[in-house]
Amino acid sequence: MTNTAQERIAFLRGLNATRAFRPDPVPDAAIEDILNVARWSGSASNVQPWEFLVIRNRETLQKLAAISPNVRHAANAPLGIVLVMTGDPDKVTHETYDEGRLSERIMLAAEAHGLGSCIGWFRPETMAAAKQALGIPENRLVRTEISIGYPDEEAQRARQKPAQARKPLSEIVHEERYRG
Amino acid sequence: MTNTAQERIAFLRGLNATRAFRPDPVPDAAIEDILNVARWSGSASNVQPWEFLVIRNRETLQKLAAISPNVRHAANAPLGIVLVMTGDPDKVTHETYDEGRLSERIMLAAEAHGLGSCIGWFRPETMAAAKQALGIPENRLVRTEISIGYPDEEAQRARQKPAQARKPLSEIVHEERYRG
Repeated sequence: MTNTAQERIAFLRGLNATRAFRPDPVPDAAIEDILNVARWSGSASNVQPWEFLVIRNRETLQKLAAISPNVRHAANAPLGIVLVMTGDPDKVTHETYDEGRLSERIMLAAEAHGLGSCIGWFRPETMAAAKQALGIPENRLVRTEISIGYPDEEAQRARQKPAQARKPLSEIVHEERYRG
Repeated sequence: MTNTAQERIAFLRGLNATRAFRPDPVPDAAIEDILNVARWSGSASNVQPWEFLVIRNRETLQKLAAISPNVRHAANAPLGIVLVMTGDPDKVTHETYDEGRLSERIMLAAEAHGLGSCIGWFRPETMAAAKQALGIPENRLVRTEISIGYPDEEAQRARQKPAQARKPLSEIVHEERYRG
């Protein structure tokens, strides 16, 4: 295995959610890289069913945090990116899957710059309030906010939540045919 | 920006779908890395709603290719990974989004090893046939097959399909508030 392959696998493997951020702003060059990696995401039939709403205003981020408990990490993040999906009622499954791909790429692009990130969801009952707060038309699908910033290592440790484990490969891998 | 950040952003940015593969097998060490990167994917509430079915048998891959036109690239791939999602009827949206995150990571882990990949979907009307062919219980959600192998550059060029463009950032980025 080459060093490059090893480094890239370790990079992918090492992604974790960060929920506590230092107040330092995210450099513009990093934001541009993140948006470009997002822009080049693959999507079903290359329809690119997304727009990106970049938020640095603290008051706005706190408002979003108050709308959905799932998005509360936005309150202490210097940057939030809200994914505004097209909202084609015939393509909900495609958009949801593509939104997952897109979200993963945004988190990884942030990590490439030493930035932490966390996905927050507006649950269905809070989507309307999020759209209204951000001036987004009602017919769009607005589910995901990604908080981004430099990790506050001390606060992360203070949460004292153990690193989340994963199931071993022996439990989840099948070869050639599913074994019941 | 550090060299590492630049290299990682270029790596993320450069991912493309590969539909034509050389027959060379995928090394076991690469498969293990891909599965480990997959295993460490984030998911809603860390439920990890997935199992991975690793297929190298050509006949099986050809059978899958015949089941869904969307999966036809599996016919010439030395490796296919079928994502077997839990299929919790109350969590379809979560599983679909997590499946997108997972798929992107598998493609990137393949790319880390110089391997190309392509996502194929079993549309709803072909899911039952796919499950039956692979011995997967009916209650699972089986939508995604990811074909993996070394790119056949010549065949890729012969497809003469231009590289797929993406919308410019100026069209899809909003700052602070959505502009109508």
